[in-house]
Amino acid sequence: MTTPRLWSFRTSPYSGKVRSAFLEKDVPLELVEIHVAKRPPRLKELSHPGRVPVLELPNGVIRESSLICEWLEEAHPEPPLWPADLVLRGWARGWAMWLDTTVTADYFLGMRKWAYGKAQDDPDDIVEQLHGRLPRRWVILEEALGAHEGPWLAGDTFTYADLSGMPVAIRMPEWTAHLVPDPAAFPRIAAWFTALRERPSAVGIDAHGDEVLSA
Amino acid sequence: MTTPRLWSFRTSPYSGKVRSAFLEKDVPLELVEIHVAKRPPRLKELSHPGRVPVLELPNGVIRESSLICEWLEEAHPEPPLWPADLVLRGWARGWAMWLDTTVTADYFLGMRKWAYGKAQDDPDDIVEQLHGRLPRRWVILEEALGAHEGPWLAGDTFTYADLSGMPVAIRMPEWTAHLVPDPAAFPRIAAWFTALRERPSAVGIDAHGDEVLSA
Repeated sequence: MTTPRLWSFRTSPYSGKVRSAFLEKDVPLELVEIHVAKRPPRLKELSHPGRVPVLELPNGVIRESSLICEWLEEAHPEPPLWPADLVLRGWARGWAMWLDTTVTADYFLGMRKWAYGKAQDDPDDIVEQLHGRLPRRWVILEEALGAHEGPWLAGDTFTYADLSGMPVAIRMPEWTAHLVPDPAAFPRIAAWFTALRERPSAVGIDAHGDEVLSA
Repeated sequence: MTTPRLWSFRTSPYSGKVRSAFLEKDVPLELVEIHVAKRPPRLKELSHPGRVPVLELPNGVIRESSLICEWLEEAHPEPPLWPADLVLRGWARGWAMWLDTTVTADYFLGMRKWAYGKAQDDPDDIVEQLHGRLPRRWVILEEALGAHEGPWLAGDTFTYADLSGMPVAIRMPEWTAHLVPDPAAFPRIAAWFTALRERPSAVGIDAHGDEVLSA
């Protein structure tokens, strides 16, 4: 095996972010599609809780999407996907983390519970609770998008922070148009979502490999 | 202002990890001690939820302990605190994240609830629930410490992954000796905790600046 191999599934936002990151770098990636309800034994060896994405390399394994992106940046520095300025880089890393753990987590966890059912100890309105957090996130995100000149979060350089917004920018209009922030109230988010959807690497969000059930 | 300034408080494990990281790098750091129940207005400007640690630099702000460590590594590369090998580096980053979000989070959140009281919607046994997760974490950690030759997680190089273990290695014997893993069952953890406590940078865990209430 020489091509890095990503264990992922099509609708996983963190897997999608990594698939798009590899497209940005033009680094070949083999995709292994897993079935969420029947995770292959090999995946459980690679990642103890059986979580994806996991990147399998000839000499080891990298777990967790933001850590896979850090590996990608160091192993394949060109084109850079972090700003050269270290303080701006720290700022961009902060927004990548914020997007991953708030907007993306709330939206996709809500969608998963809507599609597959809530957990036993979830309140009845768990989906509404999760999606109900989004409007106050938009206020914070709109302000963050005003910190630099755009079109991207850190200014004219496209970074991993933008990639962290890509899963929501692609899936939200497709799955739940009523949750998309109002362009009149959030013009910077609207422009950013459009720019993300038009980015060639956006096809990574929907990319998938052959399904492996028993690898 | 030229010296980086860290907004932190003495018993915050993530602040302690950053203070020890700066000692490892021998980079001067100004400490601003906050009062947890009365966070200064200036801190709320620097970090919207008023969270610490926050690193204030002449030209910006870095939030969140693992992102402050990434900045530190890039701004002050010597001595390196990530392994040179990129796959081993990804592995070490994974264990730093795991320690921060499992062992450290469960232990210190439990201690905080024990000291300051539980939240309104917490179950009565919240402290026991949080601390009850630790024994199964020790099993995983003991195995991870066996992956390389030691004395550190990634082998003979001390890394940020070890720093992520330092707050618990220092505070647990001091505050709650009965929670320290049994050395007979977990000999690698016992040796690692001892090595962490003996490391000169361990004094960073207990370091603090003058308290600022109204900055």
